[in-house]
Parts: sequence; structure tokens; C-alpha cells
Amino acid sequence: MSELVRFGVSLEKSLLDAFDSFIRERNYTNRSEAFRDMIRQELIKREWVGGDDVAGAITLIYDHHRKDLLNKITGIQHDYQKVIISTQHIHLDHHNCLEIIAVRGNPSEVQRLTGMLKSIKGVKHGTLSMSSTGKEIE
Amino acid sequence: MSELVRFGVSLEKSLLDAFDSFIRERNYTNRSEAFRDMIRQELIKREWVGGDDVAGAITLIYDHHRKDLLNKITGIQHDYQKVIISTQHIHLDHHNCLEIIAVRGNPSEVQRLTGMLKSIKGVKHGTLSMSSTGKEIE
Amino acid sequence: MSELVRFGVSLEKSLLDAFDSFIRERNYTNRSEAFRDMIRQELIKREWVGGDDVAGAITLIYDHHRKDLLNKITGIQHDYQKVIISTQHIHLDHHNCLEIIAVRGNPSEVQRLTGMLKSIKGVKHGTLSMSSTGKEIE
Amino acid sequence: MSELVRFGVSLEKSLLDAFDSFIRERNYTNRSEAFRDMIRQELIKREWVGGDDVAGAITLIYDHHRKDLLNKITGIQHDYQKVIISTQHIHLDHHNCLEIIAVRGNPSEVQRLTGMLKSIKGVKHGTLSMSSTGKEIE
Repeated sequence: MSELVRFGVSLEKSLLDAFDSFIRERNYTNRSEAFRDMIRQELIKREWVGGDDVAGAITLIYDHHRKDLLNKITGIQHDYQKVIISTQHIHLDHHNCLEIIAVRGNPSEVQRLTGMLKSIKGVKHGTLSMSSTGKEIE
Repeated sequence: MSELVRFGVSLEKSLLDAFDSFIRERNYTNRSEAFRDMIRQELIKREWVGGDDVAGAITLIYDHHRKDLLNKITGIQHDYQKVIISTQHIHLDHHNCLEIIAVRGNPSEVQRLTGMLKSIKGVKHGTLSMSSTGKEIE
Repeated sequence: MSELVRFGVSLEKSLLDAFDSFIRERNYTNRSEAFRDMIRQELIKREWVGGDDVAGAITLIYDHHRKDLLNKITGIQHDYQKVIISTQHIHLDHHNCLEIIAVRGNPSEVQRLTGMLKSIKGVKHGTLSMSSTGKEIE
Repeated sequence: MSELVRFGVSLEKSLLDAFDSFIRERNYTNRSEAFRDMIRQELIKREWVGGDDVAGAITLIYDHHRKDLLNKITGIQHDYQKVIISTQHIHLDHHNCLEIIAVRGNPSEVQRLTGMLKSIKGVKHGTLSMSSTGKEIE
């Protein structure tokens, strides 16, 4: 078995509280154990998407009131115009937006775009759902 | 916005190395950011199991030439009108369509809708991106 | 003044009844007078859209239960893929759909596409809203 | 479906000639079809003046780099959430965006929303396509 390494993590208190109640619910003995499980899940999900032309959707939830968020989100999308077809925007409530970006093109470019959008402060959640363009699947 | 709290985590070195390479791949700026994302995902999954108001996107790839496929896809969507906000349709090539359905409402109804759409003959690929209405995540 | 020409027109009885009540409302003395007015309005609206790259939206209302309508609408859109960016579909009620097609490209091709979609049986209404792509307008 | 009724119309030859060339331009198969379309348009305009539930699309072209434009456009849309179904956003080039807002609800509220969006500095072009929920047209 591999040696243990210890390091620090910073989280918003409200998020940590929600996480701690989740840990109790699932009967983990400590936070490290829960993190270990989540990391393994992520590594398993990381499937390879074949080909050089994929199609799919990036889904984001964000609070449009966060300073500079809209400029950043739109600026990044214009930089990645080549892989973006169109964006569907839904106003969920006074604060929250659901934005669904239809994408097509090189898979690593699409993944890079998703990473950049998710790391913007104020983006609460982001997922990428990717598929082949359908030519190779029957 | 909530204050930041710092705490320690212990992980096996091999798992941490794999996690660090995953973090680079996804363009996270540091480990805390990746943990924040994983925690939010877990909380959203909880919303989808226990909640009554979720939001997300169903992504489909299909060949529109398949007999009766369009009538079935549209018919089912009209039956589930209550949980569908709008649908984005992209013509990928002469045969293949990418259809992205923005959904909101009762999670089990949304999951049932996804199952029905995926099982239509001619639908090559279907995924449900579970997201959140944003109210319960920071 | 130009000589008068007489010709026949066929209309659904329900539509003609609605038209007749509209004529009374507006105090036209007969149907020909109302048609004369509507034609002049159309000819005035027919502005020239400059350039060879326009962007805009085609808006359609249709009853998706009409036989073969969905196949025709989707088939034509795939044939005009070059000028279509993406399509937004909204389920208005059990019968009626609102479909908004984002278009870009050659203006006469976009107009031809609009004409073909509007003439499909079961399409109740169709409009084209066209603009320059924004490069030439400040 | 309603039975067809045939009746006669008298028009000045010059107006009829202009109308016939308009019909060819728009790809109508015959005059009756063009008349049908014009009548439906008039009936829809009536819905927009007197009705309480209309549907349509607002089309905007703007330069997203203009200071504060994105915040204003999104802020106003969240205020008018009640009449907005969803928004389709297309990145035309590095500067210009095409935004198509699917709307439904009270006609005067939709018209007020259109006016507010068009008057934002940086919005180059804005149109409202008045359509119908389809219930009142055959």
C-alpha cells in the first residue's frame, strides 16, 4: 500500500458544513475517507471519448449578480467560438441561471473550455456531457 | 459569501498523484477548487434523490430519418411538457441531430422522461446532466 | 388608374369567417378592399436587406400532430443546414409548438427557407426577422 | 379541418402584378396561400392588441464588449422572467452576439420588455416577432 501524504484544503464554511452532514449521512469515519471515495469515482468516470469530432452540451448553474461573471462567461465563449454552436439560457429565479452550451469539435478543446467556465467564481456547478457526432455509432 | 475554513486531508500518495494529474487535465487552479466541485456534485446528487425541484439537461443524438422517430420524440415531450422548458435542436449532418432538452421539476419525472426518450429506436445516445436550481448550493 | 382584374380565392371556411368579422371591425366595404390594403402593407414591408451575410430568426407556430409535418420541417432544415445555426423548440400546449430557428448566411437562401417552411400544411404562422450580422452597424 | 370556400376578388392590374411577383419571391404556390398567410397575420396582430396570452420572439444583435451591457441585458430579463421562456445566444464573431428570446404571456408586458432591451446602449438591432400561442388560428 502507498504511503499517506497530508495536505491542506480551504473551503467555504457553509459548503464544509453541508459536506460534514453528508459524511455523517453516509457513515464515513472522517473527511479523508470521503475524499478518497469521491476521487476514485472521478477517476473511474474519466472515460476516453474517441475521435476528433465530438458533440455534446456543457451545463452551468451560476448567479448572474456576481461581479464580472457575465463578462467572463461571454468572453471565454467568444474565444472558443469554434467549438460552440449556440447557448440556451434559462432564468431560474432572480439570482440563478441555467446555461446550456451546445458544443461540437475537438474533444480536448471542449474539455478545456468546460474547465475554464467551471473555474469562474460564481459558477456553482458545471457538467460536460459528450458524445460522438453520431457518424460512427449506429 | 461564507468565510474560508482550512483543514487537513490524508491520502495515499498514488491516489494523490492520479488526482493531481486529473486536476491539471481539467484546468483546476488548485486541489481545494477540485474538492469544492466534487462536494457540490455530491450535494446535487442528493437533491436529485430527495428533492422536488431540480434542473438539468437531457442530451440526445439521433437519426431523424428513422421511421416515426420524430413523432415519438415530440409526442413524448408534449406529454412531459410540465418538466420541459425548451429544446435546442442542432442539425449535425444530413442524418444526425443533437437535441438538448432543458428540464426543470420533479426529479423522478425527469428521470422517467429521459428513460423513455433513450429507449426510442433510432436514438443513438442519451444522457441526463443532473444539475440544480442553485438555491441549495453556495 | 389601372384596370380591375377579377380572380378566385379559396379559403378555409373558419378562416374566412374570422376574416369577415375583422373586415366589419375595420369598416371595409368589401373583401377586395381589405385585400388591397393588406397587399400594399406587404409590399411596403418588403425592404431590402443589404449584404451577403445576414443573421436572424425564423419563428413558426405549428400543430405537431399534423401528418408528416415533423418529417417535412426537419427534412427541409437539414437541406438548408448551411444557413441554420440552431433551433429552439417550445411545447406551447398539447398541440401547438413554437419553433425559433437561428439563421445566418445568404439572405435569399434564408428567405427561400422561410418560404418553404411556411408553405408546409399545418404551419399556422411563420415570420422572418432579419438583421445584418452586426459588422457594418455601429 | 374546415371545408374550403371559393369567392371572387377584384384588384387593380398593377397591384396584382406586384403581388404576383411578391408571391414568386416568397415561394408561395398560389395566391390563395398568400392571402391565407396575410389574413392569419392580421388575426395575430389582433391577438397582440386585445389578447392576454401571446407567444413570439425578441431578436437582438449587440456587442458584448460594451461596458455594462451584459449586466443590463441579463438584469432586465430576470425582471421579466414571467414572460420569458428561454434565450438562445449565438456568438457571431469576436464582438457581435445574436440573442433570441422566446417569450410568452401578456402582450403589453412583452412589448415593454422589447422596448427596454432595444434602448440599451450597445444593442445595434432589435425586433419583436409577434406570433401566437396557436389556439385561435386554424
